[in-house]
Amino acid sequence: MLRYAFVVLFITAIPVTLQNITQQKVRSYRRTNEQKILKEFTTLLAIPNIARDTENIRRNAAFIVDMMAQRGLNPRLLEPKTPGAPPAVYGEWKAPGATRTLMLYAHYDGQPTDPKQWTGTEPWQPVFRSAPIEAGGQILSGVLDKGDLNPEWRIYSRSASDDKAGVMAILTAFDALKSSGVAFTSNLKFIFEGEEEADSPHLGEIIDLNKQLLEADAWIICDGPVHQSGVKQVVFGARGDVNVDLTVYGAKRPLHSGHYGNWSPNPAMILAHLLASMKDENGRVTIDGWYDDVEPLGELERQAIAESPKYDEELKKQLGISRTEGSGHLLMELINAPSLNINGFSSGDVGALARNVIPTTATAVLDLRLVKGNDHKRQVQRLIEHIRKQGFFVTDHDPSDGERAQHGLIARVNARAGGYNAERTRMDLPIAQAIVNAVQSTSADKIVKMPTFGGSLPLSVISDRLQTVTMTVPIANYDNNQHAENENLRLQNLWDGIETFAAIMSGKF
Amino acid sequence: MLRYAFVVLFITAIPVTLQNITQQKVRSYRRTNEQKILKEFTTLLAIPNIARDTENIRRNAAFIVDMMAQRGLNPRLLEPKTPGAPPAVYGEWKAPGATRTLMLYAHYDGQPTDPKQWTGTEPWQPVFRSAPIEAGGQILSGVLDKGDLNPEWRIYSRSASDDKAGVMAILTAFDALKSSGVAFTSNLKFIFEGEEEADSPHLGEIIDLNKQLLEADAWIICDGPVHQSGVKQVVFGARGDVNVDLTVYGAKRPLHSGHYGNWSPNPAMILAHLLASMKDENGRVTIDGWYDDVEPLGELERQAIAESPKYDEELKKQLGISRTEGSGHLLMELINAPSLNINGFSSGDVGALARNVIPTTATAVLDLRLVKGNDHKRQVQRLIEHIRKQGFFVTDHDPSDGERAQHGLIARVNARAGGYNAERTRMDLPIAQAIVNAVQSTSADKIVKMPTFGGSLPLSVISDRLQTVTMTVPIANYDNNQHAENENLRLQNLWDGIETFAAIMSGKF
Repeated sequence: MLRYAFVVLFITAIPVTLQNITQQKVRSYRRTNEQKILKEFTTLLAIPNIARDTENIRRNAAFIVDMMAQRGLNPRLLEPKTPGAPPAVYGEWKAPGATRTLMLYAHYDGQPTDPKQWTGTEPWQPVFRSAPIEAGGQILSGVLDKGDLNPEWRIYSRSASDDKAGVMAILTAFDALKSSGVAFTSNLKFIFEGEEEADSPHLGEIIDLNKQLLEADAWIICDGPVHQSGVKQVVFGARGDVNVDLTVYGAKRPLHSGHYGNWSPNPAMILAHLLASMKDENGRVTIDGWYDDVEPLGELERQAIAESPKYDEELKKQLGISRTEGSGHLLMELINAPSLNINGFSSGDVGALARNVIPTTATAVLDLRLVKGNDHKRQVQRLIEHIRKQGFFVTDHDPSDGERAQHGLIARVNARAGGYNAERTRMDLPIAQAIVNAVQSTSADKIVKMPTFGGSLPLSVISDRLQTVTMTVPIANYDNNQHAENENLRLQNLWDGIETFAAIMSGKF
Repeated sequence: MLRYAFVVLFITAIPVTLQNITQQKVRSYRRTNEQKILKEFTTLLAIPNIARDTENIRRNAAFIVDMMAQRGLNPRLLEPKTPGAPPAVYGEWKAPGATRTLMLYAHYDGQPTDPKQWTGTEPWQPVFRSAPIEAGGQILSGVLDKGDLNPEWRIYSRSASDDKAGVMAILTAFDALKSSGVAFTSNLKFIFEGEEEADSPHLGEIIDLNKQLLEADAWIICDGPVHQSGVKQVVFGARGDVNVDLTVYGAKRPLHSGHYGNWSPNPAMILAHLLASMKDENGRVTIDGWYDDVEPLGELERQAIAESPKYDEELKKQLGISRTEGSGHLLMELINAPSLNINGFSSGDVGALARNVIPTTATAVLDLRLVKGNDHKRQVQRLIEHIRKQGFFVTDHDPSDGERAQHGLIARVNARAGGYNAERTRMDLPIAQAIVNAVQSTSADKIVKMPTFGGSLPLSVISDRLQTVTMTVPIANYDNNQHAENENLRLQNLWDGIETFAAIMSGKF
């Protein structure tokens, strides 16, 4: 607490700069236009946006093309080679005299969701609440026809934070600067992807087909949450990711658990043993070689971690947990290691539908996060080898009768398409420093510099194909329920995000 | 195989007895009336029969009252004290000169089921198939308007086997004897229960309210499958049963698995560790004291097990399993031990709905089977103690913030209502011998005498309240998918069941 007080005193001593003036102009524009901004935003949010929902994805893309056309950004759809895959929306703006080009990235698709799990609202019918649901937030009606929007209000909707907030913040920052007459200091390019939540299987194709168009000195990615303390951050990398479907087998037909229980193998128990073998009680992955490839952090990165706000205890309190994985290491440290997470598992039924049966299969979906040095295919192979070592016959299909007769333990393992590796940009590059300075200029608190995001972004898809570097500047509140039901965005985070991106577009280079 | 040939030769040498003549009469009645029997049966099957579906349960009861009234069985509803609970249907028949009374029991309710999991048909729209689905059985239409029903055909419907088959076999056996003019050798009472699949929470009340009415020398229970070899059997007991809901907790809200994975505890992994701690790789329960109370089998019981057909290898082939729990012990032996089965577990989502989150909870439904000597409350207590020993704070409610702050590992454990203990009738009682002889008289194969059913029946609810013993005479095919989707009954099993119960009603005592 004392530390924060010190920071505030220090910041107030900074003289009024050009950036402070710009920030005032942007803020004034936003205050005047809040209703208009949120009307456009909620209209965008109301379009369902699962990547494989082709029809609706194209409605999103068309709406964003309209938004960009209204701003004079010369928008066009970048279609991948693969028919039916979601297009990216591209636009651009030339800044007179600028020698650098920034690409501003966000994605307009969202994670699949089960509408039944949302509390009182539908995923694609955005509503305003007076506070988070957990804090008793109530649904507000007709707020866009009144003045005085409380910045603590939240918009509940799929992709309110992840990542239509990014699209909205970027395009509104552009509006604010343009209509305030502030000069852009970089040429700007804009790209909004339509299948990031499906692991970006066609972003590579799109880049390959439009290489010259998509070159830039840096890709600035607006995605993910700010630091848990509420402080803004710049993130220099992201973990890679690959998902794996895992199924184990019992008898071919469901059996009465009385007549056959403790004779016929129970696949739920088999899966429990197998999953338990993968991590120890402290959450350390016990799969051979899991941590072997990790590229150690440099001095600047270690220093940035050491300087970051210590927030774990506060976070534990908020989340209602009193024990963490990782033998006491901080969250900020642990996200620099590869992980193995169970996204979900299922066997038979629970609750009112539960019956006294031995289920036929048990299934888990695993999520493997990777850091710099890991390779997603190699990591999946280690998982497979581990399952083999537990005595399983590993296959990629449902077992045949012959395979069932031959093997006592059978595991089906399928890595999902679209896995990719981690990426990390060096903190000492001049353009990295410039982005840090731009974001810092909008914040009274010392911003966080994070070597690696815990979440994943398809950064290597970009940096493998283009002469560029990537940095992520997130804007969402950390408690936005990203990827889950009841996803939401705090209004102040959208307002702050607009100022952040305006600073990037108009900052000194 | 040789052994069976020998049995057949031996049986053919038996002279034609009164029982053989009776069996011929019953068979002839059935052959003449197959269409009529199946029309009545499918009409009964078409009434949804989940115990808590009050309206439909009463429609079932009313239909059975009608069936019994048509047969002159003086039916009435026995209502439990608890309002809204399903009634039992009772009827009776006095046999001139009979000194013994048999109570014939079946249940008309069925297990809950998810219609989506049925293959091409609905649970309560009975259809005939030419063979089991697994053997390519096709749906047959209009079969009840044609002659020549193939006895290998199957009726697919919830409760086709479990246990409306029991209601139908008992009432049709009565019809067959009555219309053939065969004398009943016992006074008959009939009771059809309406919430056996909900663990019979009110059967005790019903017995307490109607004690004199429900006294009998033996309760003969028609429920469950015949031996896997297809041979008829008499079962002298059944395992007890209690279900337990178990939930473990992660953070209070779903978290992004990238930003928080390998720091915030994953409840699916916690549950995997906990479940894995309960059984070893051979399926032996590792909970302290689990097997301590088991009352050993007597000499007659051990002999009956030794004489039973050895069917495990054939069964493994059919079920597509090449490994069983229980360190190589036979199924027939293992069902004489208490078990712990996972009926189902769930956390987050799998398949297309899976997302990169850390779920907030993970839940399993456990099924504890008990044998003679076990007490269901004591066994649940052992489970709870085991969970505590794994470091968990055990509670019966969702944890409060205070409990979350105090305990790193929290498990919610709720034993479901209606748990009950195992029961076993001595094989050397005269009435036990008489029932064995009656059933044997209808079978060319040596019937199986089973000390304990693997499945559970609320036998102690009966024997604790009445001066009686219980025996179970099952009739369903063993591959009937009891309790699961695609439940079915093979027609020949219904035909055989009618003959079996006719022999019991007319056998020598």
